[in-house]
Amino acid sequence: MNYRIEKDTLGEVQVPADKYWGAQTERSRNNFKIGPAASMPKKIIYSFAILKKAAAYTNHELGVLPLEKRDAIAQVCDEILTGQLDDQFPLVIWQTGSGTQSNMNINEVIANRAQVLKGLTLGATDSFIKANDDVNKSQSSNDTFPTAMHIAAYQAVAEHTIPSLQHLRDTLHQKAVAFQDVIKIGRTHLMDATPITLGQELSGYVAQIDFGIKALQNTLPHLAEIALGGTAVGTGLNTPKGYAKKVAEYISKFTGHPFVTAKNKFEALAAHDAIVESHGALKQIAVSLNKITNDIRLLASGPRSGIGEIFIPENEPGSSIMPGKVNPTQCEALTMVCAQVIGNDTAITIGGMQGHFELNVFKPVMAANFLESAELLADACLSFEEHCASGIEPNPKRIAELVANSLMLVTALNTKIGYYKAAEIAQAAHQNGTTLKEEAVRLSYVTPQEFDEWVKPEDMV
Amino acid sequence: MNYRIEKDTLGEVQVPADKYWGAQTERSRNNFKIGPAASMPKKIIYSFAILKKAAAYTNHELGVLPLEKRDAIAQVCDEILTGQLDDQFPLVIWQTGSGTQSNMNINEVIANRAQVLKGLTLGATDSFIKANDDVNKSQSSNDTFPTAMHIAAYQAVAEHTIPSLQHLRDTLHQKAVAFQDVIKIGRTHLMDATPITLGQELSGYVAQIDFGIKALQNTLPHLAEIALGGTAVGTGLNTPKGYAKKVAEYISKFTGHPFVTAKNKFEALAAHDAIVESHGALKQIAVSLNKITNDIRLLASGPRSGIGEIFIPENEPGSSIMPGKVNPTQCEALTMVCAQVIGNDTAITIGGMQGHFELNVFKPVMAANFLESAELLADACLSFEEHCASGIEPNPKRIAELVANSLMLVTALNTKIGYYKAAEIAQAAHQNGTTLKEEAVRLSYVTPQEFDEWVKPEDMV
Amino acid sequence: MNYRIEKDTLGEVQVPADKYWGAQTERSRNNFKIGPAASMPKKIIYSFAILKKAAAYTNHELGVLPLEKRDAIAQVCDEILTGQLDDQFPLVIWQTGSGTQSNMNINEVIANRAQVLKGLTLGATDSFIKANDDVNKSQSSNDTFPTAMHIAAYQAVAEHTIPSLQHLRDTLHQKAVAFQDVIKIGRTHLMDATPITLGQELSGYVAQIDFGIKALQNTLPHLAEIALGGTAVGTGLNTPKGYAKKVAEYISKFTGHPFVTAKNKFEALAAHDAIVESHGALKQIAVSLNKITNDIRLLASGPRSGIGEIFIPENEPGSSIMPGKVNPTQCEALTMVCAQVIGNDTAITIGGMQGHFELNVFKPVMAANFLESAELLADACLSFEEHCASGIEPNPKRIAELVANSLMLVTALNTKIGYYKAAEIAQAAHQNGTTLKEEAVRLSYVTPQEFDEWVKPEDMV
Amino acid sequence: MNYRIEKDTLGEVQVPADKYWGAQTERSRNNFKIGPAASMPKKIIYSFAILKKAAAYTNHELGVLPLEKRDAIAQVCDEILTGQLDDQFPLVIWQTGSGTQSNMNINEVIANRAQVLKGLTLGATDSFIKANDDVNKSQSSNDTFPTAMHIAAYQAVAEHTIPSLQHLRDTLHQKAVAFQDVIKIGRTHLMDATPITLGQELSGYVAQIDFGIKALQNTLPHLAEIALGGTAVGTGLNTPKGYAKKVAEYISKFTGHPFVTAKNKFEALAAHDAIVESHGALKQIAVSLNKITNDIRLLASGPRSGIGEIFIPENEPGSSIMPGKVNPTQCEALTMVCAQVIGNDTAITIGGMQGHFELNVFKPVMAANFLESAELLADACLSFEEHCASGIEPNPKRIAELVANSLMLVTALNTKIGYYKAAEIAQAAHQNGTTLKEEAVRLSYVTPQEFDEWVKPEDMV
Repeated sequence: MNYRIEKDTLGEVQVPADKYWGAQTERSRNNFKIGPAASMPKKIIYSFAILKKAAAYTNHELGVLPLEKRDAIAQVCDEILTGQLDDQFPLVIWQTGSGTQSNMNINEVIANRAQVLKGLTLGATDSFIKANDDVNKSQSSNDTFPTAMHIAAYQAVAEHTIPSLQHLRDTLHQKAVAFQDVIKIGRTHLMDATPITLGQELSGYVAQIDFGIKALQNTLPHLAEIALGGTAVGTGLNTPKGYAKKVAEYISKFTGHPFVTAKNKFEALAAHDAIVESHGALKQIAVSLNKITNDIRLLASGPRSGIGEIFIPENEPGSSIMPGKVNPTQCEALTMVCAQVIGNDTAITIGGMQGHFELNVFKPVMAANFLESAELLADACLSFEEHCASGIEPNPKRIAELVANSLMLVTALNTKIGYYKAAEIAQAAHQNGTTLKEEAVRLSYVTPQEFDEWVKPEDMV
Repeated sequence: MNYRIEKDTLGEVQVPADKYWGAQTERSRNNFKIGPAASMPKKIIYSFAILKKAAAYTNHELGVLPLEKRDAIAQVCDEILTGQLDDQFPLVIWQTGSGTQSNMNINEVIANRAQVLKGLTLGATDSFIKANDDVNKSQSSNDTFPTAMHIAAYQAVAEHTIPSLQHLRDTLHQKAVAFQDVIKIGRTHLMDATPITLGQELSGYVAQIDFGIKALQNTLPHLAEIALGGTAVGTGLNTPKGYAKKVAEYISKFTGHPFVTAKNKFEALAAHDAIVESHGALKQIAVSLNKITNDIRLLASGPRSGIGEIFIPENEPGSSIMPGKVNPTQCEALTMVCAQVIGNDTAITIGGMQGHFELNVFKPVMAANFLESAELLADACLSFEEHCASGIEPNPKRIAELVANSLMLVTALNTKIGYYKAAEIAQAAHQNGTTLKEEAVRLSYVTPQEFDEWVKPEDMV
Repeated sequence: MNYRIEKDTLGEVQVPADKYWGAQTERSRNNFKIGPAASMPKKIIYSFAILKKAAAYTNHELGVLPLEKRDAIAQVCDEILTGQLDDQFPLVIWQTGSGTQSNMNINEVIANRAQVLKGLTLGATDSFIKANDDVNKSQSSNDTFPTAMHIAAYQAVAEHTIPSLQHLRDTLHQKAVAFQDVIKIGRTHLMDATPITLGQELSGYVAQIDFGIKALQNTLPHLAEIALGGTAVGTGLNTPKGYAKKVAEYISKFTGHPFVTAKNKFEALAAHDAIVESHGALKQIAVSLNKITNDIRLLASGPRSGIGEIFIPENEPGSSIMPGKVNPTQCEALTMVCAQVIGNDTAITIGGMQGHFELNVFKPVMAANFLESAELLADACLSFEEHCASGIEPNPKRIAELVANSLMLVTALNTKIGYYKAAEIAQAAHQNGTTLKEEAVRLSYVTPQEFDEWVKPEDMV
Repeated sequence: MNYRIEKDTLGEVQVPADKYWGAQTERSRNNFKIGPAASMPKKIIYSFAILKKAAAYTNHELGVLPLEKRDAIAQVCDEILTGQLDDQFPLVIWQTGSGTQSNMNINEVIANRAQVLKGLTLGATDSFIKANDDVNKSQSSNDTFPTAMHIAAYQAVAEHTIPSLQHLRDTLHQKAVAFQDVIKIGRTHLMDATPITLGQELSGYVAQIDFGIKALQNTLPHLAEIALGGTAVGTGLNTPKGYAKKVAEYISKFTGHPFVTAKNKFEALAAHDAIVESHGALKQIAVSLNKITNDIRLLASGPRSGIGEIFIPENEPGSSIMPGKVNPTQCEALTMVCAQVIGNDTAITIGGMQGHFELNVFKPVMAANFLESAELLADACLSFEEHCASGIEPNPKRIAELVANSLMLVTALNTKIGYYKAAEIAQAAHQNGTTLKEEAVRLSYVTPQEFDEWVKPEDMV
């Protein structure tokens, strides 16, 4: 492989000749061989591109960066955002906990790419744009990385997670409406209970998702506060006057989201409670989806030896040894995602609680877990919606059979003949394997006519 | 011990003669010998007293319970709320997951106590008030227990946790204001960084707590929705018309909190996402407090071999073997509470995700963990405020000494002589164990006058 | 209330006149009003009594404590172990993280109780036994508290948790043997699969518990290593020669368990990985029991609309509104315990990971969570064994009916007519609601005689 | 793109013409667009290759597979193990929870690749090797996937994690020996305590890692038990006699690890407690490493305003704004890995606890999290060893200065002048900012000569 020589404050480093990154990126690549290469999420890289462009615009507007440099920086940022420079970001999550090295990776790539676009030689000592002095101007890793975290997290949640949840919610709501009159047996403690409608059951799922979306939305204002302008320790040292507010406005403009400068920059660098808070809502949603999905696969269980009250789509052959078997595979994928999200919440908690003084140095692990959760939940909801929820249909024959056989309809007699006689009827039918009506009449507590009149599932829902 | 005979649908049971509870409570006591007796939180019992009274008032108002019974039930509920019947609730958390047995415990105690207050014999077959038919009228365990959970959780958070957090926050804010001009060294990566003021540092803690309180408040509307009126499966079977809305109004009136009937009762029985959501905020607060407290004990470390920038109160002798040593014990108690709250969050997540169909049967474990977290955080914040935070004082001698020696003030020269020369000065001072000024002058990059003029910590914060 | 004056290095303190504790206990009581009083587990107190007695014997044997003092200390320790001094230990978990205050509580109670037993005045300045100089001789909180943790944890696991698990395991094993020929439908993905026997299914549960017990036993050697002899920082400063080994021998003798002195005392004070390790096994057991218990309640679900393949005992009326319904309440209690244990594992992890230098200061929270898990699991296993597992019986009618109807027996035809034809038969029966035999014959793939000969569930298990 | 038509029991599917996979893989690819493509860990794919080869050898040996087919299957398996077919495995973790689709992916690739190696046409109806009938012979997804999990997990732990831990442990041990006489101040509660040597401090870390390795090794026998031979539900239906034992022998032979057939196949399919157990040990190790690493960065903190007792290597420029600052970046990477491993433990717990009946359907998520933890820990330990631990050096000047100033040496006077006088000296020095010696002499408790003779740090370690 061909190399060129780059240098930083520690000395010289060999860098692959065809790459735009510089000395600091290369050092990190060599010093942190932990897990697969380039694991730092691309959404973080892209968020950096947005904030570097915003910083360049702000620096220019405040008189500390020439127009030509602003435009050169912005041009490369736009290239990054198209994905065409994806192979220029080789660093891993498991680097310095401030993400400094990824910040430098971006700075170096922007500077060197601008050099080339300008027609100059890569690695020349008289560089057009300087990574530190120009691209990183009025910034520190300590305020750029948390800003990138918030941009990426906000976008993922607002543009991907919430719409996907809403889509699944809408489909379940349609089903709830469609099945609002399908009377079925209710179950509490996994045991037969008084009837409900399938629509009512599904409406509970819809309510769970609605609450989850609301909880997630509640966290967005905290995520919308960005650290940029705090520089190294939160004081804003080395930034021009008005910088923090202005740069947030540019980010807001470039993304279409209501980002604002953090009211307290010390908090914004030293803690990532916004990430903890917002991921708490993702975890709540995982809790909800696990319950919902588990119910759906239990309702669909069978075909002969389970509950079998609903049908779900047959998407693939179920088993390599058992012909004719079709499995709730979308439920399984989604519940696995829920397990991951709950695990990620622990990782984020562990990271969030361990900041020291002016800086939390668990930034990359928190960012990566957050983005994984937001994206997996979004993808899995869409997949589940398309390949499972949208195809849920009741099994009317099975549902009717179970309602007809149920002992729990005896509750309807409570108010007619009292709690103890009703219980006696139910227990007799239970022991004799008979129906409630048979026993009610045999025990002379009601007439057949009374039974039919009083015990109507449709009056119980 | 003397016993009387009580019976339920399964048959006869011996109950201690001097206790108000009945057959179902006694069965539970015998069948669930798990952990210490009477572990079901008293706050749940008291919340039941509130809701039973509210149900009695509503049932009476809607014409299904006579005035005399309403007042008898209400009288016992008021007694329960004073704590005088505390020894009548022997059941444990680790019972049926619906909390049915605690619901019956309350029903039985109210019925039997009312019997005695009426001057009748305890255990007589012709009871004045019936546990099932009167006290539990228009209710099911399945809607009362979650209602009690929400009442207890809401009260704990609104009356105890939030005010205690606010109290600690106010004290830290006062300290932040008081120390706003105390210039000290900042630290990132645990390494010396550019200066900040002690007030700025503390203001970050205040911001964390403010965000935590806001996050907790965001969850209150979900907690304010109560399940009562859903009865067994959420359909409201066996409730009089208008009951759900009315009973919530009474609970709101009795507690002074804005409780409303849940929009979707199926969700309210089958899931406890409100508990998951609200405890997520408690966990976030634990994350914040762990960071804050950890910082404070590091800042107070020493007296000779640590950082030693602040003093914290000496509350007790520190060690039985080392005279003169005083430890950050309040920090330790609070961080242990944080560990517990984070653990409780996992327990609540595990419970919340595993509901089946129309009922989540992890209610008692979720309630107990929630209330423990809310109360421990509240108590620990008050203790920490009183015995630690309120007594925090800077150690001006130590702070000044560290600032004077710091290499990081070199950052102030960045804009004067450039990044690389500044770095060279810092590295020289680092290697030679000298001051920045000595090296800056020795290297002829600045004059002594320039150094004093340019390197002013007070201009860097 | 009457008080007497006690003093320590910080000054005078008022102590309730009728209590044996002294100044340091009283300070802690006043300074840590966090959660319910006296929450420090009694098992920790008793373990302290064992180690204080062992230290007294060792100190005497090594010539640094007179016989009379040894015996006086030992006498009070024996009283503590009978439980008669339980009201002398008012401190909470949420105190200093080294547990120093509980160590001093024991020291003070032993010294003052010995004073009284000797016939001297409580609180006299010329005390017979000194809390620091005699009771705590050759010790520090820093080595006594972890020693008490290990004694208590080891005893709980070896004397309570493992025997209880073994008891449940033996009952399940008996059931597995008893039901080894009960052929039933298997289920994978919650869908019908090829048959197994009920005994085989239960044998899987037995294997899980066997592995869990083994995993727990694997952790005992680490728990058996005790810190005593390390004193304040692990160096053993101020202990007589031979002390560490000898005191472990006494503890081993007094408890009947193979305690040994820790090979590395620095690890034993600064980390509690033995607690983390052993609780990891408790968590694994919770994972296993959650799976087992969940299966059992699903198998018992019904009575009419669930799976209903087994019966479990009816221990109490299930619901206050639905007569005749009996719930899997022991399953619910046990799964709630599992949720708690999994939550406690997180709390212990959080505590274990945060030690600083020579001392981990999350000792009380780690101890309390460990002991709660060990005891809850033990109690819940015994309860579940007695009130549920021992009464599990198959429902032969239901089991036979489901096997007869199953489509999955078609697998038996795979090797006779090939995978695709077998699948075709199954799908036809599925779509037409018929039996496999009907469709197999209709499609002319087999004769009725061949079907009966080839498709035998008993040959498939 | 060019396609060919493949079919399975559900019908026809278009498959990319240049890929070896078939209908079932393609369906999964289309139905599970969740997260990045091809996320199923390659180690799982390779483990499948090992077991498919072992199954082919066993099937041949037991007379159910011709030699030619055995060798063709084995040849492709060997190709897979070289990595040359890596692009043939496009499926994700988030598929069916049994991993069926990845099992089929392997089956299809082996069958089609064998077809091509044989010189036949890809996709021809008369295939040489059949995915289901030949490659999957005597197997089910339900026993192959857990077998692949155990092979991959065992290999990762035994070949990567343990050796890497051992490597780090050995380096720390060398340092402990090298620094065994470097006397430094000890710290408990983050406060100054009696002295220890730097070697003693490091020996505690070594002991932690030793215990961790032992704990991990204790879990290997459970991981060594493999499910293969259980087929769909654990009964071993459709396997030739002797198959289970024999196939484990081949796997053992091919891997060099002591794999054996699981004693209970029902457990081996329905639960993954071996993964839970072994990952519990990985979590314990993360707990240990977090403590160790945190200590190291605190000891290295400074250069002027921290503890500064040790030096760690300078690997990269620390900050883009603060010249001369070098950060503990390897510590940060390793503690981030610890956070991830602890999070992964939660994900694995959630998956492990939710099996249903004969099958746990959280297999892929459990496998992926396990392998990530095992590999990240291994990589991070190597990185930390090479770039940090191996370069740890004491800062003798700073260490000596702190020892000389320490107040805690007063403990040495305890046995000479008593606890209270010693405390008085320490408190006087603390308040007056003087040395112990000055105050001891001033208070006339000792002579200067006595002080020098009695207070020797080297006698206290």
